[in-house]
Amino acid sequence: MAYTLQQLSDFHDIQTLKHRYFRAIDTADMALLSTLFTDDITVDYRSDGYRVQLAGHANMMEFLASSFNSDSLAMHHGHMPDIQLTGDTTATGIWYLEDIFIDLKSRNHCIGTAIYKDRYRKVANSWKIAHTEYDRVIELNQPLDDNITVTSHYLAKHGLKPEERKDISHLIQWKAG
Amino acid sequence: MAYTLQQLSDFHDIQTLKHRYFRAIDTADMALLSTLFTDDITVDYRSDGYRVQLAGHANMMEFLASSFNSDSLAMHHGHMPDIQLTGDTTATGIWYLEDIFIDLKSRNHCIGTAIYKDRYRKVANSWKIAHTEYDRVIELNQPLDDNITVTSHYLAKHGLKPEERKDISHLIQWKAG
Amino acid sequence: MAYTLQQLSDFHDIQTLKHRYFRAIDTADMALLSTLFTDDITVDYRSDGYRVQLAGHANMMEFLASSFNSDSLAMHHGHMPDIQLTGDTTATGIWYLEDIFIDLKSRNHCIGTAIYKDRYRKVANSWKIAHTEYDRVIELNQPLDDNITVTSHYLAKHGLKPEERKDISHLIQWKAG
Repeated sequence: MAYTLQQLSDFHDIQTLKHRYFRAIDTADMALLSTLFTDDITVDYRSDGYRVQLAGHANMMEFLASSFNSDSLAMHHGHMPDIQLTGDTTATGIWYLEDIFIDLKSRNHCIGTAIYKDRYRKVANSWKIAHTEYDRVIELNQPLDDNITVTSHYLAKHGLKPEERKDISHLIQWKAG
Repeated sequence: MAYTLQQLSDFHDIQTLKHRYFRAIDTADMALLSTLFTDDITVDYRSDGYRVQLAGHANMMEFLASSFNSDSLAMHHGHMPDIQLTGDTTATGIWYLEDIFIDLKSRNHCIGTAIYKDRYRKVANSWKIAHTEYDRVIELNQPLDDNITVTSHYLAKHGLKPEERKDISHLIQWKAG
Repeated sequence: MAYTLQQLSDFHDIQTLKHRYFRAIDTADMALLSTLFTDDITVDYRSDGYRVQLAGHANMMEFLASSFNSDSLAMHHGHMPDIQLTGDTTATGIWYLEDIFIDLKSRNHCIGTAIYKDRYRKVANSWKIAHTEYDRVIELNQPLDDNITVTSHYLAKHGLKPEERKDISHLIQWKAG
């Protein structure tokens, strides 16, 4: 009928974990990001336009640093968690994403939503993301409107500059448009 | 001063209930939706452009299935719950919605927000939505921009096709534009 | 390892406090707003386009009432809390904002995001916002599209009319565009 203190604490900490993930990718907070994943994290992001598949902490960090770079205007907001505790140190979570992603180089303006299905693992008393995947619900792309003026852009200063980025094309499969 | 384990558990479960509702309508997950409402659910959605009023589990399911159909691009994100426990098996909740709704047939593109006021009831140990109503805060409509390319559309596959939809016009009152 | 009932209750109440703040500003619910701040609240909002700095409950109320007025279409959604309890009656919180702000007089349409860093204090058993600041992550401005029809606008009725507003220009510093 009622959850235990430990269960309620786990719900809280898992939610905060994912909250930090979204905040950290949009602000290129690599120090925070590096604390959020298990060493063997696996990723599978499925859009009708692309698929991202990768494994391992180093690949995840490289993917995120180079994706959310100084040319990116990014908002990733994860909402409405549905967490299941599956053991003392394991849990699953469903989240519903809203994202805005503008690439100032290609001037593409994407808005979309997706359903995440995650697995979490408690490592040395801290919850980590062990697996994350999503399927797009909607995705709309358009050229960035010439009438739009960018008046704040945090990643311009804090994201990786072109010469600092790594080639992550092996992690992304683009689909025919 | 402090809530009990039961109260904290109720807060958690009521929030997850509503989270599932929003996820399920946008993905036409009728099996999940059917578990979320009391048999005597009542609904009253008030926009300056329309009003939806209905009662009963069957009408709610029919309304949702036919509204979020294969021509709909829909995002319904409910945020910032303000839950009050009013008894062992009753509660109220206020939520703040952001929604995007694009009808590919009429090519109308609506974005809006609304304040929900819900009542919940615990039935056989599970919280259900017993009453839900909202008032719009903002609502903006425009023709879908020709520059927008739809690159993911989950409901195109999972929503009801035109011939499968029921006539729900008796549940919706449109107001003069 | 596990939080106490009091800690979990504090997390819950602080989140509800901030939820009420966002709901109340967009609906000009001044009665609710007046309960949410300490007497000595301090504010610092930093965009690349403006900076808002103020102190004290009266200035905060005046700023909010005159900013979210009858010409404003406003959505302020605060997400993904990251709350730290720093004492029995003190806490900090990080939130991630998404906002839409349309000024129907100037016909400016702003969308943006920001990271809030708040401090909370428990006063007579109720959590209050004692300090709030944000930095913009993204901010985009454009003229309101002529194709947009406003079909619901809550603040038109409930926000301050031009003659009721106070001059708040001393609280806002606009930066060169």
